[in-house]
Amino acid sequence: MTRFLEEDFLLTTPAAHKLYYEYAAKMPIYDYHCHIDPKEIWEDRKFENITQIWLGGDHYKWRILRSNGVDEKYITGNASDREKFQKFAETLPRCIGNPMYHWCHMELKNYFGYQGILNGNTAEEVWNLTEERLQQSDFSARSLIRRSNVAMVGTTDDPCSDLIYHKLLKDSDFKVKVLPSFRPDPALNIHKPGFKEYIGRLSSASGMEISSAADVARALSRRMEYFDTCGCRSADHGLDYVMFRPESDKMADLTYQKALNGDTLSVEEIESYQTYLLLHCGREYARLGWVMQLHFSCMRNPNSRAFGLLGPDSGFDSIAVSDSCANLYSLMDAWERENKLPKTILYSLNPADNQWIDTLLGAFQGSGISGKIQHGSAWWFNDHITGMTDQLISLGNLGILGNFVGMLTDSRSFLSYARHEYFRRILCNLLGRYVEQGEYPDDWITLGTIVQDICGNNTKRYFNLEGGR
Amino acid sequence: MTRFLEEDFLLTTPAAHKLYYEYAAKMPIYDYHCHIDPKEIWEDRKFENITQIWLGGDHYKWRILRSNGVDEKYITGNASDREKFQKFAETLPRCIGNPMYHWCHMELKNYFGYQGILNGNTAEEVWNLTEERLQQSDFSARSLIRRSNVAMVGTTDDPCSDLIYHKLLKDSDFKVKVLPSFRPDPALNIHKPGFKEYIGRLSSASGMEISSAADVARALSRRMEYFDTCGCRSADHGLDYVMFRPESDKMADLTYQKALNGDTLSVEEIESYQTYLLLHCGREYARLGWVMQLHFSCMRNPNSRAFGLLGPDSGFDSIAVSDSCANLYSLMDAWERENKLPKTILYSLNPADNQWIDTLLGAFQGSGISGKIQHGSAWWFNDHITGMTDQLISLGNLGILGNFVGMLTDSRSFLSYARHEYFRRILCNLLGRYVEQGEYPDDWITLGTIVQDICGNNTKRYFNLEGGR
Amino acid sequence: MTRFLEEDFLLTTPAAHKLYYEYAAKMPIYDYHCHIDPKEIWEDRKFENITQIWLGGDHYKWRILRSNGVDEKYITGNASDREKFQKFAETLPRCIGNPMYHWCHMELKNYFGYQGILNGNTAEEVWNLTEERLQQSDFSARSLIRRSNVAMVGTTDDPCSDLIYHKLLKDSDFKVKVLPSFRPDPALNIHKPGFKEYIGRLSSASGMEISSAADVARALSRRMEYFDTCGCRSADHGLDYVMFRPESDKMADLTYQKALNGDTLSVEEIESYQTYLLLHCGREYARLGWVMQLHFSCMRNPNSRAFGLLGPDSGFDSIAVSDSCANLYSLMDAWERENKLPKTILYSLNPADNQWIDTLLGAFQGSGISGKIQHGSAWWFNDHITGMTDQLISLGNLGILGNFVGMLTDSRSFLSYARHEYFRRILCNLLGRYVEQGEYPDDWITLGTIVQDICGNNTKRYFNLEGGR
Repeated sequence: MTRFLEEDFLLTTPAAHKLYYEYAAKMPIYDYHCHIDPKEIWEDRKFENITQIWLGGDHYKWRILRSNGVDEKYITGNASDREKFQKFAETLPRCIGNPMYHWCHMELKNYFGYQGILNGNTAEEVWNLTEERLQQSDFSARSLIRRSNVAMVGTTDDPCSDLIYHKLLKDSDFKVKVLPSFRPDPALNIHKPGFKEYIGRLSSASGMEISSAADVARALSRRMEYFDTCGCRSADHGLDYVMFRPESDKMADLTYQKALNGDTLSVEEIESYQTYLLLHCGREYARLGWVMQLHFSCMRNPNSRAFGLLGPDSGFDSIAVSDSCANLYSLMDAWERENKLPKTILYSLNPADNQWIDTLLGAFQGSGISGKIQHGSAWWFNDHITGMTDQLISLGNLGILGNFVGMLTDSRSFLSYARHEYFRRILCNLLGRYVEQGEYPDDWITLGTIVQDICGNNTKRYFNLEGGR
Repeated sequence: MTRFLEEDFLLTTPAAHKLYYEYAAKMPIYDYHCHIDPKEIWEDRKFENITQIWLGGDHYKWRILRSNGVDEKYITGNASDREKFQKFAETLPRCIGNPMYHWCHMELKNYFGYQGILNGNTAEEVWNLTEERLQQSDFSARSLIRRSNVAMVGTTDDPCSDLIYHKLLKDSDFKVKVLPSFRPDPALNIHKPGFKEYIGRLSSASGMEISSAADVARALSRRMEYFDTCGCRSADHGLDYVMFRPESDKMADLTYQKALNGDTLSVEEIESYQTYLLLHCGREYARLGWVMQLHFSCMRNPNSRAFGLLGPDSGFDSIAVSDSCANLYSLMDAWERENKLPKTILYSLNPADNQWIDTLLGAFQGSGISGKIQHGSAWWFNDHITGMTDQLISLGNLGILGNFVGMLTDSRSFLSYARHEYFRRILCNLLGRYVEQGEYPDDWITLGTIVQDICGNNTKRYFNLEGGR
Repeated sequence: MTRFLEEDFLLTTPAAHKLYYEYAAKMPIYDYHCHIDPKEIWEDRKFENITQIWLGGDHYKWRILRSNGVDEKYITGNASDREKFQKFAETLPRCIGNPMYHWCHMELKNYFGYQGILNGNTAEEVWNLTEERLQQSDFSARSLIRRSNVAMVGTTDDPCSDLIYHKLLKDSDFKVKVLPSFRPDPALNIHKPGFKEYIGRLSSASGMEISSAADVARALSRRMEYFDTCGCRSADHGLDYVMFRPESDKMADLTYQKALNGDTLSVEEIESYQTYLLLHCGREYARLGWVMQLHFSCMRNPNSRAFGLLGPDSGFDSIAVSDSCANLYSLMDAWERENKLPKTILYSLNPADNQWIDTLLGAFQGSGISGKIQHGSAWWFNDHITGMTDQLISLGNLGILGNFVGMLTDSRSFLSYARHEYFRRILCNLLGRYVEQGEYPDDWITLGTIVQDICGNNTKRYFNLEGGR
């Protein structure tokens, strides 16, 4: 029996052990897609207690508390931090099999040195230990990043952002790269409240009047240029589903005018505008050499009562079955026909999409870039042993696993780098199993190279992170 | 090598063994959803031979016989019981990997004490042994239930039923709870033959005239009240797919009038009527504190030649790809908005739906009920090692496995309680593996509690079965 | 640790080892569906070098090269054969987990006696060794087939083919059966370029004028009769998705007239014509006792730039999510209602379809034919350890694994018989695991029979291959 979280955690063979400790564990972390607020890095934020750092904004944990019948008072309500932590500690032991069970204990062990098990009885002990440690200097945002051997943090930023904290950090003595990503969702979400106001902000940020869909495109391009000067190497689109409705530019423009007039838009109109802008953005990313990330198959805010009370990102989003497959083929083809397909990472929230995505990659590879089109690491609800293993196996079955750009946290937390360790152990366990079962030769040089490529070197190359800050 | 069906059957680690024998095996069975005829319990039915108890109404076995090219004469036709059994015994050894292979041998071993293997050569021996044993008093319906350590049987009942056998059993010396479930499918299936006649029966049963869709709703509510007084704690809807088309009440009513006139209904009309009634039923279940079970993604009677000859439930139903995901989110949201979402168990026949269902749960949990929204145990065609393991893993990955209400047989057979043993071994094997691989601490108290919760205590709590009969 | 490709490759238990070596390995190969050119068998083609036999037409390998960023010059371009091989050898080690990694090394070992690992450094050694060996007489097409213990090769043929090479082979001293399969896709693809010309060829081949959809059907029937006299036992349809739009014959005919006039066709028209012909073909296959193979869920030529440059079958086809489920039920039902459902093998390219397909089988079994409706072996992008294991497990869970007709290569290569060994090892490993874990008794006679049935005897029976050539 392997003891919980001990040295061989998730490493079920000697080959897995060797690959992890001799190759993977040494690699720095390139966390190329997360939701950390760069202001918190700049200000080197500290946290008063474990509830603030764990339960402050982590909707994974909120969901779990609700599933256990805990009252909202102890989740997003006005209970004390200590009370909230107690409820969480009482809930956690029920979560056998849940990755949060592992993450929490890895974080307690790696950052706080706690070797025990968190539950209702040990909550007081853990509260006190963590409260004490959090006052120490090595628990500030920057210290946590440094201690985690992070080489690069990729934030997610609005095109209107002035990226002031990225600039300040670049000019500071903080040696970790903190690079922005361009996320223009509000400019595409023409059907959502606040669109008109957003266009106003975009107009100011880009210093140009915006009176047509083509102007939106131009304004976004200006912001991309600015982001590029600030070290941006990547854009990100959060799509509920992939649409493809390539109408005339005129149609996109008419839709834009209707939206600004406050008229109701048809699905056709919305999709034609979105397709227009998405195609524009992709072309520009290709021109700039950026990586385009597309996230889809997400059901956002399905619980309208909770949305009314708590707003977005409160732990209600879920997996959708989306009609994205044929559209995504068409969209990729549209760029490819113009020879303007950027490097692309595809993420579906629905793991039933894994296999068709992995073959779609193969239909659009090329341009002399190894692994130009990527299947992103098991995302959000798939970020567990099963989900990550399945994604890796499928990628290996259907493409070149050795070219994979690997793990990202997608997280708001400074402790979540433990998930890179989690991923690396899972990766090494899979590759180790291949070796132990005679499915790959025990050529450690090649294996080690593959492991280190997936754990960072591919990322560094793919995102052009080689240069200085 | 573990010998077939021996002590360690499906228990591949010492931890699994310990969890099964020290915790799971001792638990009584709460078989909260089955299709046993309560009349057979009341009359304490006995069976002449193994064909009657095994092949009398078990369409799982009929399918397998047809797959093996056996003539219908030996399945539902006029061959002798002995001949039918011979064909089945000859077919079974081909079914390597099929859960029926396990169930049959578990039943022969557990109930008849037969230690051998059933095949064409041993059929005669098994026929004779079982024929002799079936004459003994411990093979009556009630004896089989008692011998299986069953604490509760949840039958499936038509709203028009007078539940006479449930009442007789309640007042008898039979100590096992036999509780009805409310299954109003015929009142919702406005497009199926016999709807008008059904409304007639419902009118009689509810003692009210039914002249509108609202009257159908009212009549169902009356029957719910009656069922509630008879100990009913649950309703069940068999939907081919989840629809959601919330039109005005007037539209539902117009559709009702058209149906009674024998007019052809459009899909929109059918769905608007069904949505109207489904929403009504859910609200009422919430009011009564019942559990609502929704079954979907089922292709019923796809073989119309066979349907013409043999009717429904003859072994031709299959898994469907249904367009249920977005509709189910909307339906749950509609109840939730009114704060009238009942406790709900969701079952899809298509295992490709597992992951989105498990996240949908998390979007509607709450109300201070731990595990309020449940993903039902791997159902029907998923009731095998792979299907059950995958459902448990996915539930653990995406929610709180410890709150799961666990197994049900969905069966017509008095021998099928062996499937609870099957489930429990699979469950303990999974949890045992987590422990052995260091993914959960070897805290046996907590583990034992989780196992016993999933094997019965959660069910008892969730269905309010604590009280006396 | 099992050494790479050693005796126990993929055989993780003693039971698996026993099943493979005592039963599976001895069986001849019935490769009932491939794309080998019968002319190459007749002419006993030889190959100059490893690039010709490996990279000449193998789009699996082309995909992989593109995924690794290799320039098209080294794939389908004018680089030298030696250069192309070098690029492939450098790419292969990155493909950990990919079945191609296994196939390549199995082929090098089984046919060329090479025990090493192929990579950039060993490419020269392998090039020289294989070049020398390929000059030897045991590397001609016929020799490779004979050395592989192949009993039957099922080619894929156009209905217009005169099958001259099949006839010549039948009358030759080559003892392996080389039988045609009937693949009428061009006659169904009314919407694709070249349809009119194809009808001209079909008219010539069938010796009749074709002036209606009914005439197309009649002409196809004539060609089926001819194919039947040449030993054909099977037809094959490559459908992107399964359509079912049974309109009047008149509608099919009108569509036909429009197509010949060069008019644009609606989806409804295309599908009504295709449904008409597909129904006709199925009836005829039933009459002739043929096996009908249906392939679907394929996205063909999604990359239009690449299609323009390289044409079809160049490594860009991929998995589709197709709306085939309900249509396939309806299509099968249409034949079954007329009692004209032929023996059928279903193949979806999307593994998310496995489970519904496996239950659909059970809805249409019968007619006294064991395993009349089959789920084809994991196809194309699923032809790896995961895909084959999942297909076998699902088939076992939901039907009768013992009746499965087993593996086919679907390949253009004379070395690809190694994939039968791959399949057999995977099969024996699965069945062996069942035995080792006590899920099936260690009854070696029955197990051996099942293994040998799946590895050839079922195929022989199902395709009526018992007789002489």
